[in-house]
Amino acid sequence: MSQSSILQSSVSQSPVLQSFIAGEWLGNQAGQALASPVNGETIYHTHAETIDFGRSLEFARTKGRAVLMAMDFQSRASCLRDLGKYLLEHKESLYAISLLTGATRNDSWVDIEGGAGTLFAYASVGRRELPSGNLIHEDDAFPLGRDGQFFGSHILVPRQGVAVHINAFNFPIWGMLEKFAANFLAGMPCIVKPATSTSYLTQACVRLMQESGLLPEGSLQLIIGRTGDLLDRLDGQDVVTFTGSASTAAKLKVTPNIINNSIPFNAEADSLNCAILAPDVSVDSPEFDLFIKEVAREMTVKAGQKCTAIRRVLIPENQVQAVSERLTARLAKVSIGDPHLDTVRMGALASFEQKEDVLAQLEQLLKSSQVVYGHQEGFELLGKGSEKGAFVQPTLLLSNDPDAEGGAHDIEAFGPISTLMPYKNIDHAIALAARGKGSLVTTLVTQDPEIARKVVPALAAWHGRVHILNEASSKESTGHGSPLPMLKHGGPGRAGGGEELGGIRGVKHYMQRAAIQGSPTMLSAVTGEYVRGGETYESDVHPFRRYFEDLRIGESLLTHRRTVTETDIVNFGCLSGDHFYMHFDDIAARDSQFEQRIAHGYFVLSAAAGLFVSPGEGPVLANYGLDTLRFITPVPIGDTIRARLTCKRKIDQGKLSPKGEPQGVVVWDVQVTNQHDELVASYDILTLVKKQLD
Amino acid sequence: MSQSSILQSSVSQSPVLQSFIAGEWLGNQAGQALASPVNGETIYHTHAETIDFGRSLEFARTKGRAVLMAMDFQSRASCLRDLGKYLLEHKESLYAISLLTGATRNDSWVDIEGGAGTLFAYASVGRRELPSGNLIHEDDAFPLGRDGQFFGSHILVPRQGVAVHINAFNFPIWGMLEKFAANFLAGMPCIVKPATSTSYLTQACVRLMQESGLLPEGSLQLIIGRTGDLLDRLDGQDVVTFTGSASTAAKLKVTPNIINNSIPFNAEADSLNCAILAPDVSVDSPEFDLFIKEVAREMTVKAGQKCTAIRRVLIPENQVQAVSERLTARLAKVSIGDPHLDTVRMGALASFEQKEDVLAQLEQLLKSSQVVYGHQEGFELLGKGSEKGAFVQPTLLLSNDPDAEGGAHDIEAFGPISTLMPYKNIDHAIALAARGKGSLVTTLVTQDPEIARKVVPALAAWHGRVHILNEASSKESTGHGSPLPMLKHGGPGRAGGGEELGGIRGVKHYMQRAAIQGSPTMLSAVTGEYVRGGETYESDVHPFRRYFEDLRIGESLLTHRRTVTETDIVNFGCLSGDHFYMHFDDIAARDSQFEQRIAHGYFVLSAAAGLFVSPGEGPVLANYGLDTLRFITPVPIGDTIRARLTCKRKIDQGKLSPKGEPQGVVVWDVQVTNQHDELVASYDILTLVKKQLD
Repeated sequence: MSQSSILQSSVSQSPVLQSFIAGEWLGNQAGQALASPVNGETIYHTHAETIDFGRSLEFARTKGRAVLMAMDFQSRASCLRDLGKYLLEHKESLYAISLLTGATRNDSWVDIEGGAGTLFAYASVGRRELPSGNLIHEDDAFPLGRDGQFFGSHILVPRQGVAVHINAFNFPIWGMLEKFAANFLAGMPCIVKPATSTSYLTQACVRLMQESGLLPEGSLQLIIGRTGDLLDRLDGQDVVTFTGSASTAAKLKVTPNIINNSIPFNAEADSLNCAILAPDVSVDSPEFDLFIKEVAREMTVKAGQKCTAIRRVLIPENQVQAVSERLTARLAKVSIGDPHLDTVRMGALASFEQKEDVLAQLEQLLKSSQVVYGHQEGFELLGKGSEKGAFVQPTLLLSNDPDAEGGAHDIEAFGPISTLMPYKNIDHAIALAARGKGSLVTTLVTQDPEIARKVVPALAAWHGRVHILNEASSKESTGHGSPLPMLKHGGPGRAGGGEELGGIRGVKHYMQRAAIQGSPTMLSAVTGEYVRGGETYESDVHPFRRYFEDLRIGESLLTHRRTVTETDIVNFGCLSGDHFYMHFDDIAARDSQFEQRIAHGYFVLSAAAGLFVSPGEGPVLANYGLDTLRFITPVPIGDTIRARLTCKRKIDQGKLSPKGEPQGVVVWDVQVTNQHDELVASYDILTLVKKQLD
Repeated sequence: MSQSSILQSSVSQSPVLQSFIAGEWLGNQAGQALASPVNGETIYHTHAETIDFGRSLEFARTKGRAVLMAMDFQSRASCLRDLGKYLLEHKESLYAISLLTGATRNDSWVDIEGGAGTLFAYASVGRRELPSGNLIHEDDAFPLGRDGQFFGSHILVPRQGVAVHINAFNFPIWGMLEKFAANFLAGMPCIVKPATSTSYLTQACVRLMQESGLLPEGSLQLIIGRTGDLLDRLDGQDVVTFTGSASTAAKLKVTPNIINNSIPFNAEADSLNCAILAPDVSVDSPEFDLFIKEVAREMTVKAGQKCTAIRRVLIPENQVQAVSERLTARLAKVSIGDPHLDTVRMGALASFEQKEDVLAQLEQLLKSSQVVYGHQEGFELLGKGSEKGAFVQPTLLLSNDPDAEGGAHDIEAFGPISTLMPYKNIDHAIALAARGKGSLVTTLVTQDPEIARKVVPALAAWHGRVHILNEASSKESTGHGSPLPMLKHGGPGRAGGGEELGGIRGVKHYMQRAAIQGSPTMLSAVTGEYVRGGETYESDVHPFRRYFEDLRIGESLLTHRRTVTETDIVNFGCLSGDHFYMHFDDIAARDSQFEQRIAHGYFVLSAAAGLFVSPGEGPVLANYGLDTLRFITPVPIGDTIRARLTCKRKIDQGKLSPKGEPQGVVVWDVQVTNQHDELVASYDILTLVKKQLD
């Protein structure tokens, strides 16, 4: 069944959802009924058939892994980009289904386009930061002895197992894709288990991905319903991630099989995030407005069902009234109801269970706080049948005693509910923020860099992300609640102690790091990167005259020599304009640490290029950069230098030059030495080299 | 009581060991008796007094943290160096006590001098890789929007709690110091609980550290005996590390308080490490000898009581006889007995419980293997009274069926016992290696880089460290069994899934990472590093004329301009010798991606230096390097360039120049732009800048 036919039949026939296991869609018999929180009608059923998790794992470990390992970082990055494009082209079908979850179009944007955006972001991480092949060489190899024949380094290889993702109900698409992007790029197959209540939207997305023809076989499987004995079948090469409540995380984490096999378990738990209005912000400043808007937005977007939502609003004691009034005015404007209606600003909670839970937590919160805004009886609802839906009015509370145990520091109502907590001074605010015992994110609204300098490092120990909001950043700010692919998502303590995303960091969670030790030649062979002291290859052909494909790692050129003269220094200084005393002032230079005039470092660099460049047209298209240049030994007048240029690293990004020519990146190791064979300068140069192709 | 008085009284009085809690030595009443494994005599008692762990934690969290935070990375690095020196100066007193554990002087070298060496290594990591202050700015801030007023980045701050280290009996000093070095440099206080059986040696080391007067108050506490309710009192800012058996690790890991607060738990468990003799190594090659020596050494050093020891010896089927004979001959030469005797090559196990356990595991192993060498009855023992000691003869087994379940793949005898496992081909060897289900280390002995290229990435998924041994690396190799401070220590699966050491990686385990977002000015304030787009400070004083102390982050110079002429290009090419067609051949340059001749990148770099250099003598002592140079826009003839130089980062290493002048490192952000304000080149330059001091 295609996702469009699901949509058409969704209201009248309440179709049966299917799992995608071992390359097949599984499930025909109706299991659990899933109701739309918008009006209470049954819209889907899970399937009643049980899943053979042994078969599912076997398929991932053999077929899935084999297919992914036949690709490499670069080709998987391209695949992620193509998948992202395909999803964006078909996004309207997902938006239509997302309305059934109670989410407005605005709410769904993060889920659908944010999900696709994460695929694009990781495609770009792969292209820019990862090599060809399936092995990351994490650091330059370094000598472990004095004679240069025993080196150490670190590599990362894809874990040989399966990534099992257990996801939350609130972001059925983004929640899957933000994990999939990283494990896929790393080269691990995954099995995704979305929360059942909104699993129809995840299913629709997986169907699109499969129908695209882009998804490598075995790289992604989908579970509708329970995980059965899946966790008991995992081993030490697998990874489990969990997003959801702290209590479920704690339960799953101690699964004996997970403990006994040291299976990495990355937890992302809801937390009691706060926003802090710094004491410097006056009520008539733009930052005050920004604070009000941010809090109101975080309370109402996705009906407050975000693990990053602001639950605690820390404000100076003397701002309680102003903040209460402004927030009340803003919240009062939020229209609530069926998200199919354009006029609706806030939709339903994702299920009736959620509503029940939120109201129960609200009751708990009311023991230590009073209502500033919101009442749960008889508020206005837009849309036919919405009176039967799972709606909750945005509710703002004021804590009676922010220093007391319990209350909003410990009770999470996972809906549009936040609590104002007045603080005495900024140190008090820092202490109150930490009372959340570990959160995903906090927002600090201030105009004063000195406050940020003091407060942010203190907050950083307790929060996965710290968002500083002021007028300057506000125009571009992506907001308190949005995890970004390039920034770490996850917090300490109550927030689960996990880490996701953060660019390349997210990929490494699905890889295994090993230290390696051996001779430079052995480490060159393993890492695919030239290690100094390792075997080199020299021939009559200048390395710059070889096409990308023909270049060997270790291919090397030892240049002719050049004696550095006083004339060189004078000419170079006059041409560059650099008349630094170390090169031009015999008196001051004698008095310096080098005790004589020495050549400009940039002259040595330029002369080295003159020694190794091959002037005519050839495969080397451009030298676009240089890394880790160190001037090690000074070059006084009369010294004679030469350079060794060695092919260090090749990256095939399948890229085209501006003229449409296929090319690859080649990094060259350069060592400039003097007549005593002492290292004078050391660096890497980055070039683009044409491919020959035929 | 000083450590020397403990030593003197050790045999006659069996003194009571003391814990070091909240700045005081605690314990007078004798508790558990500790026997010397060399001759069975009681040498120490634990103390009977219970420890108030609430007080201990409170002391670490207040006093310890305050003292450490009053220091910074650089000053803590110096302190580590001084502590290392002090321990080396007093090492003989530790060697004397170490003999009581059954260890030979050679065995103790790793523990005592290896421990001090780890302090030196982390002192150097701090000096070279960490900034001043107590915050690590992990990556360059990057724009999150198009207008450059919203940036993201990552910082690391010291976790605000306590590091609790639960250590194994086999390395009473190194086991403490390899963890202490990292947590101390990070800025966390720690509480160390050594295994009771050899805790007298740990105590002696802690006494030395305290007597040195170098140990900051509250930074280190020592528990002799049990941990009581310590783990139940921890919170989400604390860290637990464990070294020992996999079963104890599994038990501690699920402590409800650890789970509920997501307390990081780093486990380092014994594992069934293997060594692989590759099929290319012939019996008469030097590598064959190296393999035999390495296996024999790993079996007998520390009487095989190392979590990294070789338990499984994977050899080609056709080499069983040769390996058996050579290993037997080598093991037969190992003299066993009281390590006080110079003639003794292998000492006792660390306790009688260990001996009992090892013999029980040996019995299990014998169900699926046969003895090649070794018998536990009546072997020769040197030294008076050693017949009462906990000695075990080195024992080499041959597996009956390496593919069978159980056996040496699952049973660990934590003593001088290894099992030969014949393999059919290299793929079979890889599969057998993985049967250990995750190990700390493996050694591959081969002459062939192609074998390393194929085998090492496959081994890397299952091993924390892969040691490649051949003739070239052998002279400097530190061996299979030695974790090194700069290399990761820890393995997946059975090995515990943890990571320790690995240079700066080890420090980060004791820090909390937070993503930060905000305007460049705010991120500059938080990170202490200039972020492009942030506030700059310009004055009439050239930034190169300011002393280290006076330079402000963001202090900036926008230079005058320079028009790049054809003459410049010709002169630069003739001077450097770089006549690349892009600069000199009008025909080929027109046909290139830039469609015209352009200036040399290194000319732009040199001219920029000419624009911003301040020629006379001044506080800037040297430009010693350059990082992340990227040429972004080409500079054709007639373009006019200028440079902006901004103080980006300052590191005060308390260093002296070769002339004895106090200096610091200053990193400058350089942006070269053209007449359209387009970025032409972007890089960081590294300088040494003199301090004024008065």
